[in-house]
Amino acid sequence: MRATVMYGAGDVRVEDIADPVIEQPTDAIIRVVRSCICGSDLHPYHRRTVDQPRTTMGHEAVGIVEETGAEVATLRRGEFVIMPFAWSDGTCEFCREGLQTSCLHGGFWNDGRGVLGGQAEAVRVPQADGTLVRVPGMPEDPALLASLLTLADVYGTGWHAAVRAGVGPGDTVVVIGDGAVGLLAVLSAKQQGAERIILMGRHAERTDLGREFGATDVVAERGEEGIARVRELTPGGHGARRVLEAVGHMPAYEQAVGVLRPGGVVSRVGVPQYPQAPVRQLFYVNGSLTGGPAPVRAYIERLLPAVLDGTVDPGRVFDRTMGLEDVAAGYRAMDDRTSLKVMLVP
Amino acid sequence: MRATVMYGAGDVRVEDIADPVIEQPTDAIIRVVRSCICGSDLHPYHRRTVDQPRTTMGHEAVGIVEETGAEVATLRRGEFVIMPFAWSDGTCEFCREGLQTSCLHGGFWNDGRGVLGGQAEAVRVPQADGTLVRVPGMPEDPALLASLLTLADVYGTGWHAAVRAGVGPGDTVVVIGDGAVGLLAVLSAKQQGAERIILMGRHAERTDLGREFGATDVVAERGEEGIARVRELTPGGHGARRVLEAVGHMPAYEQAVGVLRPGGVVSRVGVPQYPQAPVRQLFYVNGSLTGGPAPVRAYIERLLPAVLDGTVDPGRVFDRTMGLEDVAAGYRAMDDRTSLKVMLVP
Repeated sequence: MRATVMYGAGDVRVEDIADPVIEQPTDAIIRVVRSCICGSDLHPYHRRTVDQPRTTMGHEAVGIVEETGAEVATLRRGEFVIMPFAWSDGTCEFCREGLQTSCLHGGFWNDGRGVLGGQAEAVRVPQADGTLVRVPGMPEDPALLASLLTLADVYGTGWHAAVRAGVGPGDTVVVIGDGAVGLLAVLSAKQQGAERIILMGRHAERTDLGREFGATDVVAERGEEGIARVRELTPGGHGARRVLEAVGHMPAYEQAVGVLRPGGVVSRVGVPQYPQAPVRQLFYVNGSLTGGPAPVRAYIERLLPAVLDGTVDPGRVFDRTMGLEDVAAGYRAMDDRTSLKVMLVP
Repeated sequence: MRATVMYGAGDVRVEDIADPVIEQPTDAIIRVVRSCICGSDLHPYHRRTVDQPRTTMGHEAVGIVEETGAEVATLRRGEFVIMPFAWSDGTCEFCREGLQTSCLHGGFWNDGRGVLGGQAEAVRVPQADGTLVRVPGMPEDPALLASLLTLADVYGTGWHAAVRAGVGPGDTVVVIGDGAVGLLAVLSAKQQGAERIILMGRHAERTDLGREFGATDVVAERGEEGIARVRELTPGGHGARRVLEAVGHMPAYEQAVGVLRPGGVVSRVGVPQYPQAPVRQLFYVNGSLTGGPAPVRAYIERLLPAVLDGTVDPGRVFDRTMGLEDVAAGYRAMDDRTSLKVMLVP
């Protein structure tokens, strides 16, 4: 089959690799209907060195079950499923708590343990009963497929940011980052009852979508200037109780702490690209820092109905659809920011 | 009057300074009955350079109201009061939320704004109505005075650590640090319902007191060895959901993150002596980092009854009482760890 392979920084190719096969009785094979490129895929795209082993790419997909292992009980061939960005057994103590990204028998695509990536024609899914979520029927509408695909990562990740920050009715929330996760953090905060949502982002076409998702204010300035502007928008200039950091770079972290109201929460869902962070200011204001890899599996059932009935349209974060063969162009488009998020059709 | 003045690292003296006077109509003057030396006083004792201006010391006291400003409504001369380590108006939005250490009109003793320290014969207390808490009667029993004095800082700080960590019935809690705050974090966790309390500390006489306060286990090892030992004690080896870090140095932070169960909370109340901290591991396990300067004022009414009726005896953290004139010896005793916490009698 055809699959995406990263050779090194800036060098991503589509190649023939062996078709995936059932390796464990708890596996399923799915035929990919849509996959996509993630902002986090750009980290290896920037940094990977050629002496690192090649790796397949992709961790978000929707598709159709093609084959199931002998122990898979809840899925049948031909069913349409969402594949979250982490696999999980659904039964361990962490899964039962809704923290599937800490599953005792789980893992991540392309994590070096032989589970290859979703930017491909097919993919082997470990712990299929726990991992995959069935969608009724056979969705074909492109807009719906796009929205379902967001449940594999970016929507659930934005939702997690808001959950972890404790967003509730009437809250003032700051969202840092106008990427797909930031925009869906806006949507999530809105759904969770936030009254005022201040989106920090510089790309007008993205922040315009953010406004449609529920942002009440947009701050394009960054750094100290951005912090001051956000503070002006908050009561008393004290900052916001809930700050969702959807980038993962140090300037975003610094902005998050800078706009935080004493006693508030910074919720991070962008994989931190910084090994260390200043944590004194956070202490002095009794701030909290929370977040982590989103257990999107935990949220799919909650989020699916409004996607299916069209109440929300998170798939709008995809501004480009490409064939799998064009994946290299897709990476380039996201890297040079001419595309917000690229969907791939195998 | 006599007061403690720090000249530089290792150089603390008792000197004659001007008696405090009412400066603002919201001030009160209290005659100090007991004050004490704080673990955090050792930071300038270690680091202060002689080119920094001299400063008075002390931020914990109990005493008797001697004079009140014209606008002080709730206090009268002769009343016995507890003086928390931060002053606060009690009426601003942060005070109403119980975050008095972020009071809009508050501050800290010796913070450079002309409010001098409590290791003295008397002290001027700004925002007296908001800051001071009356104690019924005129306590004279030395053990009771000691326990009341802990409400000015260390008991409320330990309590805050547990509150911020979300300690509740049945929880497993790790407390890092066998100083006064750590030991009272143990007591607080016990009072808040923790079932298992693992105290990390190396000083047997201190950890013995910790056991009396409620620690079910003591781990004397530090670093990776200590982390492994704590993990062995937790179900599945997964670590603890609630970790109270009562030290403020990097090794304690690293231990805290090392023993944290995925999804758990590290609550810091030791003033961080590190400008930066590693925050990736915290992210990968969806851990939270919280805590800050404890709003002890918020907790005094809650904690006072059990102190007054003898249900708890937090004053046991004071293992030495000295006259104010001996304050330099008191600092030395705490610095060389021959004393856990030194109480001062003016």
